[in-house]
Amino acid sequence: MLSQTAEYALRAIVCLGRRFNEPLSTQRVAELTGVPTDYMSKVLQALGRHGLVRSSPGRNGGFLLVHAPEKMSILDVVDAVDPLQRIEHCPLNPKVKHSDLCPLHRELDKAIATVREAFAKCKVSDLVGGKEHQSLCTLVGKRGRPAAALKGSTRRR
Amino acid sequence: MLSQTAEYALRAIVCLGRRFNEPLSTQRVAELTGVPTDYMSKVLQALGRHGLVRSSPGRNGGFLLVHAPEKMSILDVVDAVDPLQRIEHCPLNPKVKHSDLCPLHRELDKAIATVREAFAKCKVSDLVGGKEHQSLCTLVGKRGRPAAALKGSTRRR
Repeated sequence: MLSQTAEYALRAIVCLGRRFNEPLSTQRVAELTGVPTDYMSKVLQALGRHGLVRSSPGRNGGFLLVHAPEKMSILDVVDAVDPLQRIEHCPLNPKVKHSDLCPLHRELDKAIATVREAFAKCKVSDLVGGKEHQSLCTLVGKRGRPAAALKGSTRRR
Repeated sequence: MLSQTAEYALRAIVCLGRRFNEPLSTQRVAELTGVPTDYMSKVLQALGRHGLVRSSPGRNGGFLLVHAPEKMSILDVVDAVDPLQRIEHCPLNPKVKHSDLCPLHRELDKAIATVREAFAKCKVSDLVGGKEHQSLCTLVGKRGRPAAALKGSTRRR
């Protein structure tokens, strides 16, 4: 339902949210989220352009969240990289406005609205969990071991 | 939220549903739905493979719905061409089962489940409307004039 870019952006935000105030390099975020580094680099740049992450310079620099995890929703992240757009005009005829959509596009738009509402309600803080809580399945653990180290493992931390 | 293929398949099914028992050629369906003929040909073939449409041979042959519009849902159509799949395993670790998904993928799966439920409830008969009802915005009218003939028109029938 979501594009790969949106999925990767969400993984990155959850990863950074779990380490709020701890800068992480692109490579480290890529490792922890199981995303190719080049792809993650583009995703982080897009999130940066939309003011969701920033980079801190220096030897121990890296990417950080701009806002606290409780101030950011799934929808903010999705809309930054691949907007989940309502159907404002019928795709078959741009002159047909939202209020006059045909039954098919009205129904599809209703589903989009429902998803947007659910995603707006779910904050990043709901996804990063507490100390005992896993994030991103077994990949992002307390010690932040990279995906490769856990390959094939079902151990939960 | 839906792929272009799923959107085009839905337009085709609504178009055929409005003319239940009246065979329509690929080109006619393409015209009435505003979809390139080659693309619509592939969509109709996929719908045929999944038993949602069938072709009748002969001079006046063409595509027909296999089931009555009230027996087919949006979900049936979407799942035939581009399934809206639940997240059964964490994309980051296939060994993590549905019941153990991380908070992010649990949330995404919940949204997919909600959309699937809404799409399953909405039948094609809800989309084709009655005699006075428009289908597919202004494109598919009573006389079934092709999209090109209505280009730029906001007239509703």
